[in-house]
Amino acid sequence: MATRIIPRAASAHEPPMLIKSLLYQSVRYEPHREIVYRDLFRMNYVTFNERVRRLANVLTEAGVQAGDTVAVMDWDSHRYLESFFAIPCIGAVLHTINVRLSPFQILYTMNHAADKVVLVHEDFMPLLDGIRSQLTTVETVIVVSDKPYAEATKGDFVLPANTHGEYEALLAEASTEYDFPDFDENSIATTFYTTGTTGHPKGVYFSHRQLFMHTMCLTTYVCAYQAVPFQSPVDVYMPITPMFHVHAWGFPFLATMTSTKQVYPGRYEPEMLLKLILAEGVTFSHCVPTILNMLISSPAAVKYQEQLSRWKVIIGGSALTKGLATAALNIGIRVYQGYGMSETAPIMSVSYLNDHERTLDTEGKVHLLTQAGRIAPFVEMRLMDEAGHFMPHDGEAVGEVVARGPWMTQGYWQEPERSEELWRGGWLHTGDVASITPDNWVHIADRTKDVIKTGGEWVSSLEIEDLLSQVAGVAEVAVVGLPDEKWGERPHAIIVLKADYEGKLTPESVRASLQEKVDKGELNKWYVPDRVLFVKEIPKTSVGKLDKKRIRSEMKDAILG
Amino acid sequence: MATRIIPRAASAHEPPMLIKSLLYQSVRYEPHREIVYRDLFRMNYVTFNERVRRLANVLTEAGVQAGDTVAVMDWDSHRYLESFFAIPCIGAVLHTINVRLSPFQILYTMNHAADKVVLVHEDFMPLLDGIRSQLTTVETVIVVSDKPYAEATKGDFVLPANTHGEYEALLAEASTEYDFPDFDENSIATTFYTTGTTGHPKGVYFSHRQLFMHTMCLTTYVCAYQAVPFQSPVDVYMPITPMFHVHAWGFPFLATMTSTKQVYPGRYEPEMLLKLILAEGVTFSHCVPTILNMLISSPAAVKYQEQLSRWKVIIGGSALTKGLATAALNIGIRVYQGYGMSETAPIMSVSYLNDHERTLDTEGKVHLLTQAGRIAPFVEMRLMDEAGHFMPHDGEAVGEVVARGPWMTQGYWQEPERSEELWRGGWLHTGDVASITPDNWVHIADRTKDVIKTGGEWVSSLEIEDLLSQVAGVAEVAVVGLPDEKWGERPHAIIVLKADYEGKLTPESVRASLQEKVDKGELNKWYVPDRVLFVKEIPKTSVGKLDKKRIRSEMKDAILG
Repeated sequence: MATRIIPRAASAHEPPMLIKSLLYQSVRYEPHREIVYRDLFRMNYVTFNERVRRLANVLTEAGVQAGDTVAVMDWDSHRYLESFFAIPCIGAVLHTINVRLSPFQILYTMNHAADKVVLVHEDFMPLLDGIRSQLTTVETVIVVSDKPYAEATKGDFVLPANTHGEYEALLAEASTEYDFPDFDENSIATTFYTTGTTGHPKGVYFSHRQLFMHTMCLTTYVCAYQAVPFQSPVDVYMPITPMFHVHAWGFPFLATMTSTKQVYPGRYEPEMLLKLILAEGVTFSHCVPTILNMLISSPAAVKYQEQLSRWKVIIGGSALTKGLATAALNIGIRVYQGYGMSETAPIMSVSYLNDHERTLDTEGKVHLLTQAGRIAPFVEMRLMDEAGHFMPHDGEAVGEVVARGPWMTQGYWQEPERSEELWRGGWLHTGDVASITPDNWVHIADRTKDVIKTGGEWVSSLEIEDLLSQVAGVAEVAVVGLPDEKWGERPHAIIVLKADYEGKLTPESVRASLQEKVDKGELNKWYVPDRVLFVKEIPKTSVGKLDKKRIRSEMKDAILG
Repeated sequence: MATRIIPRAASAHEPPMLIKSLLYQSVRYEPHREIVYRDLFRMNYVTFNERVRRLANVLTEAGVQAGDTVAVMDWDSHRYLESFFAIPCIGAVLHTINVRLSPFQILYTMNHAADKVVLVHEDFMPLLDGIRSQLTTVETVIVVSDKPYAEATKGDFVLPANTHGEYEALLAEASTEYDFPDFDENSIATTFYTTGTTGHPKGVYFSHRQLFMHTMCLTTYVCAYQAVPFQSPVDVYMPITPMFHVHAWGFPFLATMTSTKQVYPGRYEPEMLLKLILAEGVTFSHCVPTILNMLISSPAAVKYQEQLSRWKVIIGGSALTKGLATAALNIGIRVYQGYGMSETAPIMSVSYLNDHERTLDTEGKVHLLTQAGRIAPFVEMRLMDEAGHFMPHDGEAVGEVVARGPWMTQGYWQEPERSEELWRGGWLHTGDVASITPDNWVHIADRTKDVIKTGGEWVSSLEIEDLLSQVAGVAEVAVVGLPDEKWGERPHAIIVLKADYEGKLTPESVRASLQEKVDKGELNKWYVPDRVLFVKEIPKTSVGKLDKKRIRSEMKDAILG
């Protein structure tokens, strides 16, 4: 293409797309709006900007240079938000550590990412102490504490040996001035690790430009399209998926750019979450289904139904079932579903009801809201068969979801083979199997590896989970395929019952309710699980997803062996 | 800076920021929404996308290649919108011709831009015919007509000699398939010419990336911040500043990306504009003060006050006076002011009332809304003194506005000296004199060349215009400085009276109303114009701004002799 290109030299006046430009917006129009951390700390955006610069000075004094990696191990807090900006804005790389990984995995990721400085909450000091002797690159540890600053510096808080100091004490001494430099917008801003079924965790990484563009995607989607209504003058944001997990879906960048009031809940204790939603007027969150289930099952949810009806929540991580969606809508909570993964920063799709669909009744809406959403702005998504051919978006054809877009990880950090595998044919392979309708609704059938192959048929474990979630008394459910001599594989289910249904249901009565559908001709008979087990808890991964690998292995032991 | 840069080779999977990605969004969620041209044509976004691809095929068949320039001379229409996308998306450059320039200037710009193909409305054929023999690069002319397609092809419409064909006839024959290619996002997408006080018109130019980023700025500003409330599900957009003038401020790109209903009014006949606002439910526009004045002065405005109260309008081009702002707010029209220029694509600032300011009374709001607005997202703006030093943003210091940002022209096309002058010291020099408050309100004092230097004082001609606009009976006003032996310069005013005030005011009574303020100590005496002239019409530039150069010269003749 012989387009007329503005030569780079002539573009010298064009500033790069850096995360600092999002930060600068936060004090332009509404500097008085607040950032709140539980009932422990609150500040306005002027103070926030000063603290980000103080942190930048603390890190620079601790020897952090452009290109170095700084790791964070903290609960979801204002400090975490400060590190979202201070670390990338000085040209360093923010490594958000998944504190739910095993110590061995954490050790691996810290050495692999070459963390130089670590900000660590005192709650995670024992964990860090256990692996500290094997850390090969860490030079400095900065301890953070939830104790008030005065207490922390009055000797009540004792700094562990070899640390650089305590976060608040260091910030208090640092300057509020820092002139964040310009640099290449393709510089890496963040990294974190995702665990697969085999091998070491894999490091994904994102540039300033990618995170800027992801923020613009969210802005277009939730603000312009009002897909999930968000307007900075009226909304109050509280993340309930961890900051270490794909930047809390990137919403902290949007909320900060728009000086929206933000609330950080620390740990996810249902009482504290509800208290913050009510006391701070939270209107906009995102979480995994388990948390939503926990919140709406609590007695307080019914009591405060009216206040909760201002709350909008995007569900991700695991599929939103029809049962949970209906329960939420029935008490007035507006639920949506999003779809994405660590590799995609993460947004690939979010529910969007169009002009026509907004007029549907609850059942019609639930049907759509339990899809994975509509393809997000600027994302290209296709379905691919095993031979690498594109498949039609007709709502029928089922293939692997592949994607391209302005904010996908360009590979796994220093893993050329796995990177090539991820991007084969120039498309990011998600490992998810889905259909897409002509009007862009994405229906995830399953993870490629979780699909149950039974008697020559492919059955989606998610679909059976969805059916079982609608049986009265079922609180949570997981379905996996186990080997079967005759059929190849057969579905098996584990179920957590609602407290008031214990003793009232039996595995057979649950199976019978599906069998009824089969008898009426509404369901194929191979969808009825061979066995149903009642359990107290369903194994989850470190980011709250159903841990199908562990479930499969435990059920194999329990049922078959 | 030794940041870790994602190497370009590894970023091969990252798509460039091209205008086509805005187009693709328009059919993702709300393909049924409409684009309307007067009472002559309407279509949904599916048809629009097909027509854009048809046009791309027509242009390709006419020999247009990547890097070629295609010019448009049309009224504000759906065809113009089609060219906003089809031309850049095939890698060509869209030249929006200012049809109000003199034939000599149009000839100069067409040869200078090296236009290869011209889309021209039949109304402008005589103009084009007059200069055709001197056009050095044009190979093909495509004629467009407002006559229905059937008529145009049935011989009622006669194609001029040497044309390629008629727009609708050509589109009808073309394929609806076109695979828009990927190319460098820094490729030039658009160009147009701006006239200064001296010399030839200057060509500004913008890349795909710049127009994409400008669209993101608008999205952030009007959708996320709700600075001028805009939400695609409820708003209906109609531009009333020409498409040839800085892409109608870039709003057609935002409206298309969000599949917002759009209405194109052709020429600016007050009756047609009002009719469209009422019939199509228009809620969002932008125009120069003259048009707003014309609309709200019409008897229909009072009659349809209720419907008009849904209408939001951003004023630009010339300053919004307190008189006009108050008149608009009084009948329920929400007015805002924007500030920008051809060189800045154009947005540099737009009114944004913050949480506190939204609670002000009308007078308080009018005071703010008649400022040039608040610095727009991602724009850096500073005040500079004559020695090139930055000045404080304290609401007091007055200096030249200089700016940087992700969508400024990187120079004037093939004019290295003027480009260097524009960007001296790495900042784009606007030629406007302003103060900026600590909370980012920009108050334009004047154009540097329109400031009146009288008796050692600098007086803003805009400020005197604003005072005179508040005198009962004054419809429009312009103030210029003319040479004076004693004081150096003195202000002189020309005024258009409202119809029902003719004969009731005298130049002396108008001067007296300012003198009253002087006597009360509210105004410095040198603000009272030496002379006031009543006129039927005030000279305007081709884009509707007060033509101070012509006013100055005509008044010099009229007054001084």
